[in-house]
Amino acid sequence: MVNLVVTGSIGLDSIRTPFGSVKDILGGAAVYSSIGASFFTNPGIVSVVGEDFPQEHIEILKKKNISLEGLKVMPGKTFRWNGYYEYDMNQAHTLNTELNVFEKFFPEMPDKYKKAEYLYLANISPELQLQVLEELSPKLVGIDTMNFWIENSRKKLLEVIKRCNILFINDAEARELFETPSLVKAGKKVIDMGLHAVVIKKGEHGSLLFTNGKIFSAPGYPLETIVDPTGAGDTFAGGVMGYIAKTKDFSDDNIRKAIIYGSALASFDVEDFSLGKLMNISIEDIEKRYGLFKDIVSF
Amino acid sequence: MVNLVVTGSIGLDSIRTPFGSVKDILGGAAVYSSIGASFFTNPGIVSVVGEDFPQEHIEILKKKNISLEGLKVMPGKTFRWNGYYEYDMNQAHTLNTELNVFEKFFPEMPDKYKKAEYLYLANISPELQLQVLEELSPKLVGIDTMNFWIENSRKKLLEVIKRCNILFINDAEARELFETPSLVKAGKKVIDMGLHAVVIKKGEHGSLLFTNGKIFSAPGYPLETIVDPTGAGDTFAGGVMGYIAKTKDFSDDNIRKAIIYGSALASFDVEDFSLGKLMNISIEDIEKRYGLFKDIVSF
Repeated sequence: MVNLVVTGSIGLDSIRTPFGSVKDILGGAAVYSSIGASFFTNPGIVSVVGEDFPQEHIEILKKKNISLEGLKVMPGKTFRWNGYYEYDMNQAHTLNTELNVFEKFFPEMPDKYKKAEYLYLANISPELQLQVLEELSPKLVGIDTMNFWIENSRKKLLEVIKRCNILFINDAEARELFETPSLVKAGKKVIDMGLHAVVIKKGEHGSLLFTNGKIFSAPGYPLETIVDPTGAGDTFAGGVMGYIAKTKDFSDDNIRKAIIYGSALASFDVEDFSLGKLMNISIEDIEKRYGLFKDIVSF
Repeated sequence: MVNLVVTGSIGLDSIRTPFGSVKDILGGAAVYSSIGASFFTNPGIVSVVGEDFPQEHIEILKKKNISLEGLKVMPGKTFRWNGYYEYDMNQAHTLNTELNVFEKFFPEMPDKYKKAEYLYLANISPELQLQVLEELSPKLVGIDTMNFWIENSRKKLLEVIKRCNILFINDAEARELFETPSLVKAGKKVIDMGLHAVVIKKGEHGSLLFTNGKIFSAPGYPLETIVDPTGAGDTFAGGVMGYIAKTKDFSDDNIRKAIIYGSALASFDVEDFSLGKLMNISIEDIEKRYGLFKDIVSF
């Protein structure tokens, strides 16, 4: 039974970082976030790929018990992202985004997904996020977005966000969407919109959780070498949503725990390109890093 | 008896932020850091001002029981800094720095300071930092610097840092001085130089403490409004050094506590221009905010 439905991009990424270059590797927000969630719950993906999508990538997702009944294969090319990072790896620079099969995609919900109590709308057009949201009656909905949609579909995006419970958003995007330099003010605005929580992602600086009147600050895991930050924010949010879906507990204390699990997962993601590291860790590795987070912040 | 000697700039700051402008207000690294330290110990300043330095500023420092026996008044003009902040208040933009009386200043150590066990070399030329260091035999020496000295006196600066025990440095400056994008690598390089600890200051994102093999991540205090960040790093370091001087304990656990006290003080500093807020808080206010830091990071 699928407990967490995840929608968002699935694609082939071509990435250059100071530590190397890769071409057409498995990527996309729905991939990273469902892998992150898969350590805690049974995710099912709603998305689309083209006929050029390699079967080996399908096998990777299946290996993690991620349901692909909602993954359509359509004539045409798979979504592609081409970008690079300079020494400040907090900032992704996009060279090219090809929506390809997403341009004509309309989601259909498999029966197996229909009773899922948790939904994560990873980054993709607000229209598609809304279509998926309307197919389900989840207990808790998380959503992420990016500057492209803030700048091009602001109204639609805010309409979808209002119907969700947890917003995941980068610090720069929070400042842009809520038109304030203060992350605390941005956080309050989200809570005033009626959401249960907002998680502001700050890359290597960790994240901030705002709930009604309370703030939690999670550190970034201090890594000596970051190979490729692509997917870190998605892996993080997937981990958070997966842990909440597993524990069925929306309390402040439990969301804080979920955020540390998500942070631990994100810290593994950045240690290699694509899913290189995430496919080779166990729940014990995650628990161990969770313990290190405790030590890092304790005083 | 002076327990913590502080050297560094004392000056008149002219500052513009999105929330207002001020002209010739009391500022300088030695001022903010000794005010920060004064909540925990008895600091004494070694520095210089010109004949134009207002007596009311002297009274402010005296009110905090900061010894000024090492403060010379020399013919000429007081040090001046003129700068501004844009909406991203993590970044100070310097319009003009006038060294003025610092150009001819040679420090003399008052007898009352000579038995001080703690020394804080706030930002000023590495030459002056070294001169002050050679006048004393402290148990623990802290040091701060800025990009100007990294770019213009790199060799001398590294020579002084090597003789200190705790380095305080901004994240961008750490990357510049140690020629690495990784703060973890920069931290390790400082420990390899033989220092006891390095504290990397990250503005609103808090700070990182590196000691031998251990890392501590302190959050920034989430403020809704920041009026003027000038002096926050100095107030922070002064608070850290003051707390260590009070407790005479260099253990990891105690430095972590010191860092949270310093962070609490810095968070008050930014709530007003100059010492507007710092002159109006008590140790109880600091203890209260210390408790809030506990809550902010607990999971």
